[in-house]
Amino acid sequence: MINIAILGGGVVGSGVFEVINKNSDSISKRAGKKICVKKVVDIRKFDPNIYGDVLTARADDVFEDESIKIVVETIGGVGFAYEFTKKALSLGKHVVTSNKELVATHGPELLRMASDNGVHYLFEASVGGGIPIIRPLNQCLAANELYEIEGILNGTTNYILTMMKKEGKDFSVALKSAQENGYAEANPIADIEGYDTCRKLAILSSIAFNEFVDFNKIYTEGITKISVEDMNYADEMDAVIKLVAIGKREGARIFVRVSPLLLKKSNPLANVDGVFNAIVVKGDAIGDAMFYGRGAGKLPTASAVIADIIDVVKNPEKSGRNIWEIPANDNIIPINECETAMFIRIDGDNSVALKAVVAQIFGDVKYINSPDSNSVNNEIAFVTKTINEKDMKVNIDQLKSAPDVKNVISTIRT
Amino acid sequence: MINIAILGGGVVGSGVFEVINKNSDSISKRAGKKICVKKVVDIRKFDPNIYGDVLTARADDVFEDESIKIVVETIGGVGFAYEFTKKALSLGKHVVTSNKELVATHGPELLRMASDNGVHYLFEASVGGGIPIIRPLNQCLAANELYEIEGILNGTTNYILTMMKKEGKDFSVALKSAQENGYAEANPIADIEGYDTCRKLAILSSIAFNEFVDFNKIYTEGITKISVEDMNYADEMDAVIKLVAIGKREGARIFVRVSPLLLKKSNPLANVDGVFNAIVVKGDAIGDAMFYGRGAGKLPTASAVIADIIDVVKNPEKSGRNIWEIPANDNIIPINECETAMFIRIDGDNSVALKAVVAQIFGDVKYINSPDSNSVNNEIAFVTKTINEKDMKVNIDQLKSAPDVKNVISTIRT
Repeated sequence: MINIAILGGGVVGSGVFEVINKNSDSISKRAGKKICVKKVVDIRKFDPNIYGDVLTARADDVFEDESIKIVVETIGGVGFAYEFTKKALSLGKHVVTSNKELVATHGPELLRMASDNGVHYLFEASVGGGIPIIRPLNQCLAANELYEIEGILNGTTNYILTMMKKEGKDFSVALKSAQENGYAEANPIADIEGYDTCRKLAILSSIAFNEFVDFNKIYTEGITKISVEDMNYADEMDAVIKLVAIGKREGARIFVRVSPLLLKKSNPLANVDGVFNAIVVKGDAIGDAMFYGRGAGKLPTASAVIADIIDVVKNPEKSGRNIWEIPANDNIIPINECETAMFIRIDGDNSVALKAVVAQIFGDVKYINSPDSNSVNNEIAFVTKTINEKDMKVNIDQLKSAPDVKNVISTIRT
Repeated sequence: MINIAILGGGVVGSGVFEVINKNSDSISKRAGKKICVKKVVDIRKFDPNIYGDVLTARADDVFEDESIKIVVETIGGVGFAYEFTKKALSLGKHVVTSNKELVATHGPELLRMASDNGVHYLFEASVGGGIPIIRPLNQCLAANELYEIEGILNGTTNYILTMMKKEGKDFSVALKSAQENGYAEANPIADIEGYDTCRKLAILSSIAFNEFVDFNKIYTEGITKISVEDMNYADEMDAVIKLVAIGKREGARIFVRVSPLLLKKSNPLANVDGVFNAIVVKGDAIGDAMFYGRGAGKLPTASAVIADIIDVVKNPEKSGRNIWEIPANDNIIPINECETAMFIRIDGDNSVALKAVVAQIFGDVKYINSPDSNSVNNEIAFVTKTINEKDMKVNIDQLKSAPDVKNVISTIRT
């Protein structure tokens, strides 16, 4: 038997507790030992039927108990979670977590600390909820030089975008629906501004490219400016709009970006709808592989946490192999040096004059027909050639200040 | 350093040799040791530039060499491959393979033998080519009670079906194209009759449901009878036709079937085209997860083989955990006891008379409009209710012998 403790009895923590107890027999069989939750630490009160007498408000009940070998950190954030993780690792306890913020922020330090103490620090649940992605990257694709990852990593924003597309609801209505259905938090900023996706991309990139990718350096744009009209235009282009995270190895440096993106419908990611997540991984031997599933939720996340726990139980000695070196030189390509094409919608009094302005600034572009055939306004929409992001910004600023342009309605990368 | 040998220098064997040498640095880093291919065994002649002086025709060069710890079996089939695998395992050498036929046929014996000898018998590459699926089932989803797997497991048939659908080519033309492009063998029977898919389903089911599933007991139907007209009807139903493998836990028994299937276009498997494979796994905690990628080919398969090699190098001691028990009682539900709905096309002189026959035999059915609006024949097409397979067979036989029915053109499950 092996004793574990869960720090944080919230949604994910309670899911871990529930699944370990429900599937106890098969989990024990696969782990080779019975896994027993000896303590759940939380300062909040819970219905006594949930945790019974394993609940405690004292984290020291875990740290002082030498029989507890594995600590599941499901507190979230970088406050107590950080302190408790360091304490557990320094005491020689393995730590398993779903905390993407902590991994993205302090991953190099915590992985090093785990290695120094001969224990594991595992975080399969930090990206993609229940989808197995961290372990496949680390193990199953280990024969490959991975050169690109591309993913839909946030269920909340994908739910909102799907609802906007399928039901024609405005962003604010779709957001409200996501909140009512428990897919978005009361404060949805981390999701809708792309911050959550950004942290997950940092973790995936650090693993895929074997060096630490600092999330602070990832260009990140959320979905708050996307409209139903943009989606209708996308449909005209046989495309959809998704919040896409991209990481690419480019020589000695790495290109990383989180932004809304026009994806052709033939792209496997284009068909990933609702709260589902998917990650496409490209390697020199495997070609393209995709992993798809529920990117969040109590039980899927618990499934990933428990997979890590079983791994620790089966391989307690195989620890500290994964270290994220902080690169000596800046390894992230600044967004200004990257290239992109852009879908742009502008409005003015005279579409002929608008097109003249566009030609002058962008040269040749591809015009997109209005999806609203009854439209009587002078809005025009086009896709630029692929150019440097710095030049793109200059051009868009020029567009904004051109006398014939009333409004730059949308700018979405493609 | 660790020495390995490759038995069989054909497509997969040469891919393993190539990738190990090409990505030597990163593979060594991940494995923790340098992996050296000491021998490649094959009785055929090769260009000396391929294998150099590691090539030998004597398998005993491997068995007699105690420094060779891992044997990669890429011979295929159940003849020499079976004998050599047993010999290697009995000598305490780990065996890694891509040989689905051998695993499906002798898996229980070989896994037991590996366990008895304290070594690994691993076969990630036997299903799904480069797609990580065996390890995710065994490890990443270990917290789940898995209750269903559903997959497109054969790239050849999926390439043919995709070509038929997208280019309107007949089966024979599409098969020829597959052969010309190296996606189908000169003798394509194992692929097009579903036997390859059947063996892969047996392997996946044995892992997912924790007991041996004998491929001989899996109802298997290939794609040779599928026509472009069937695909056009499918389109009318907002569906596509795929060769689908299904395994489902049903109480103490298991439902397994390989057959062409009408899949709604909203099904994630419906969008899997060309030589790609995909496997949907359903578990009580994770919900649905899908794994997608190249299901065959030299380098993707090599990628999976090498992932297993790295696993052995990292965890030589963690062996023999997976045993497939042969169940005491017959664990497979006979096809006659299963249920299905069927899409049926029949032809006759008088469509009114045909419908009367259909009503008499099948009761209420859903008629499908002809996709060819210029059609002047009396063909009718319909989907039956879900009934027992035994009754379905009786009904179809009755249909065939009904005086007004000239021909039962197609029967495809849905």
